[in-house]
Amino acid sequence: MTTEPTWSGSAGPTAVSPAGRVAPGTARVEAFSDGVLAVAITLLVLDLKVPHVEHGSVWPPLLDQWPGYAAYVTSFLSIGIMWMNHHSLFVMIARADRKLLFVNLLLLLLIVTVPFSTSLVAEYLTHPGFNGKIAMAIYSGQSFLMGLGFAALWGYPLTHPRLLADGVDVAAARRAFPRFAIGSAVYGALVAVSFLNPAVALALHVSVAVYYAFERLPVGQRAGGHLG
Amino acid sequence: MTTEPTWSGSAGPTAVSPAGRVAPGTARVEAFSDGVLAVAITLLVLDLKVPHVEHGSVWPPLLDQWPGYAAYVTSFLSIGIMWMNHHSLFVMIARADRKLLFVNLLLLLLIVTVPFSTSLVAEYLTHPGFNGKIAMAIYSGQSFLMGLGFAALWGYPLTHPRLLADGVDVAAARRAFPRFAIGSAVYGALVAVSFLNPAVALALHVSVAVYYAFERLPVGQRAGGHLG
Amino acid sequence: MTTEPTWSGSAGPTAVSPAGRVAPGTARVEAFSDGVLAVAITLLVLDLKVPHVEHGSVWPPLLDQWPGYAAYVTSFLSIGIMWMNHHSLFVMIARADRKLLFVNLLLLLLIVTVPFSTSLVAEYLTHPGFNGKIAMAIYSGQSFLMGLGFAALWGYPLTHPRLLADGVDVAAARRAFPRFAIGSAVYGALVAVSFLNPAVALALHVSVAVYYAFERLPVGQRAGGHLG
Amino acid sequence: MTTEPTWSGSAGPTAVSPAGRVAPGTARVEAFSDGVLAVAITLLVLDLKVPHVEHGSVWPPLLDQWPGYAAYVTSFLSIGIMWMNHHSLFVMIARADRKLLFVNLLLLLLIVTVPFSTSLVAEYLTHPGFNGKIAMAIYSGQSFLMGLGFAALWGYPLTHPRLLADGVDVAAARRAFPRFAIGSAVYGALVAVSFLNPAVALALHVSVAVYYAFERLPVGQRAGGHLG
Repeated sequence: MTTEPTWSGSAGPTAVSPAGRVAPGTARVEAFSDGVLAVAITLLVLDLKVPHVEHGSVWPPLLDQWPGYAAYVTSFLSIGIMWMNHHSLFVMIARADRKLLFVNLLLLLLIVTVPFSTSLVAEYLTHPGFNGKIAMAIYSGQSFLMGLGFAALWGYPLTHPRLLADGVDVAAARRAFPRFAIGSAVYGALVAVSFLNPAVALALHVSVAVYYAFERLPVGQRAGGHLG
Repeated sequence: MTTEPTWSGSAGPTAVSPAGRVAPGTARVEAFSDGVLAVAITLLVLDLKVPHVEHGSVWPPLLDQWPGYAAYVTSFLSIGIMWMNHHSLFVMIARADRKLLFVNLLLLLLIVTVPFSTSLVAEYLTHPGFNGKIAMAIYSGQSFLMGLGFAALWGYPLTHPRLLADGVDVAAARRAFPRFAIGSAVYGALVAVSFLNPAVALALHVSVAVYYAFERLPVGQRAGGHLG
Repeated sequence: MTTEPTWSGSAGPTAVSPAGRVAPGTARVEAFSDGVLAVAITLLVLDLKVPHVEHGSVWPPLLDQWPGYAAYVTSFLSIGIMWMNHHSLFVMIARADRKLLFVNLLLLLLIVTVPFSTSLVAEYLTHPGFNGKIAMAIYSGQSFLMGLGFAALWGYPLTHPRLLADGVDVAAARRAFPRFAIGSAVYGALVAVSFLNPAVALALHVSVAVYYAFERLPVGQRAGGHLG
Repeated sequence: MTTEPTWSGSAGPTAVSPAGRVAPGTARVEAFSDGVLAVAITLLVLDLKVPHVEHGSVWPPLLDQWPGYAAYVTSFLSIGIMWMNHHSLFVMIARADRKLLFVNLLLLLLIVTVPFSTSLVAEYLTHPGFNGKIAMAIYSGQSFLMGLGFAALWGYPLTHPRLLADGVDVAAARRAFPRFAIGSAVYGALVAVSFLNPAVALALHVSVAVYYAFERLPVGQRAGGHLG
């Protein structure tokens, strides 16, 4: 497998080979991932249900489904910010081999199920009994797995530096990797919080998403680099 | 946060850094936004329901759901024209930082719920009683919020001119901003109209969408500029 | 409106303005249209329903919904070939103004409802009585309107030649226009056939779609041109 | 049809014609195919149903629908890896004519129905009696047809070498074609396995998908080529 050609992208979205032919770079993987994330984030709206009311006001049943709105906002921000961070990573990755494509596919496989777990939370968050806790724990566990997926997506090129862009400081990035990967631990903690108070856990998910929106991932770049 | 690198896009979709690496410009944000808008606008069709008729003609129930068709057309034009204006703005924006990406994400979060509010209008527009007014007021209120979202999306780079394209006349754009932002006030007025006559409010939404399709947004450009 | 700047695309997807800024060409409209068509064509699968069988074989109910499969294949080919022809046209169109964008939006508005009319045909094609004829006539009437939409999409730049690409022979294209526009008449005839025999009308739709897949649209190009 | 112009893409996504106009290359077909595959792969999540539980734990019904999760994972990997291989092929294809576009459209027509057959498997895999076998045989038969579709998509340009990229060793690719096409036979065998043990057949589908993720398709390239 060591001589397997990579999808070279060192000169950007298109790299003209000696034969004058354009080979796809990571632009293609990013475009497909963008498409999948755009569809997944938009399907979240299918969870917002129009209540059917024959008599009386539609207002109370609309308000009653506040867990649906809260779950929609949380998951929309989560997927949106995963999109941001997916791209931050791919700015650092210049070439993709089939293993990287497969790791990326597994990460997408997890992200695409977010509308399902969101729906579960919307349905059960305010149910009496244990089901709200189960729903929220599944939601948090999924976030934990997606965090591991991101760690794999960055860990793999870090250990295969020929896939990295020229400006990446590999040594610094490897030193920063544990701090990068530790992000998943937060979601592990949210699994525990889900069993204590699922509504609080959902609110904490929003906070974590917003935090990651503004906090640059520690990925290790040369000072003055133009990769960000 | 002041030294945070931006996603430079000054030379267009791809900008080769000194290190020879291509950094994503706003092309990426636009592509993701395009994807989300394309899915949201197409999901509107799920609101058109095939009536189930065992005996008798399917024609009357098809005609009975005219509020669904009216809401479909209104929302399709609204999202389509928001797409046009989203791009008119991004022609002026050359670089994106994480705050701009976040403002854009909040705007998308609102737009993606348009199929839900459209569904609400389709279901309740012709209901006797107050529910049609509630549905239409929610629809108008959402348009008002999206107007504010667009104002934020343009106001932020105006106050952070390093994000703007070279040809933008910042002083003129700032003078034009109130006129740009005032557009939302129309939707505020439509909230009131919704309580008076929801069908009229829906028709006015179509008019406003078509108006914005042909009226260039006042964004402030140099005379003879090639940005439009 | 005569001095309204166009979205210049004369040099392709990106055209660097004097100020060094990249302005979107028709690439952007095409990308958004591609996205909408890709979603609409894929949503057709939601019409294929899994039958729920408690006892006995699932095979008979699967076979019973053959109108659904036939409608799926017909509509998939129709949208796919409209995509081909949409692009054939946009190769000839180098610049887009807001009126062209609006005509394109109206065409998309029609195309996105194809999953709805397909669903109608799948439900009623084999119903006894008149409903199959109504469903198929609506389907054919929609195709007729889409044909008019394509005529408008090509007629508008033909009468505004500054929007056309350099290699287009405007005089020849105008002479060829009636032959281009006459295509819609076929669908008008299929409305009549729908009332005679809806299943035959559906089969004819497949034939017409396949015909348009291989027959180049008469759009008028210079001999030896590289626009096709 | 022999003089029909192709969509030239020899210089990559955009090829400037003598008239200075950019003609679409295969980039356009790939972008549309990417969009369709991205939507189809994401619609798979609609098969994961939230169980409705009034009393008792939601956990048992969640576990009971394990065939749904298994089918989701299988189909997600299958479509994802078809996406990989679609692109591997299109790196070799520099130009598209209308016949190639039509073959590609037929392949997409099959792929888009994967969410339907996945749903069928999710519903019936564990049903007592024959229905699980029927569902799984349909799923395998569909994979067989998609394999034939890929063979056609590669066989057509191999017999029309002017569509191929410059670096492709046509003679070697033709020699490798039988080995490329034989892949479908595996799916033919899985139809038989489906009738013996549908759960085993589903597991074998995962294995085959993962195998194709890492095994480069035998497509015939010059040694040292940069096409992969």
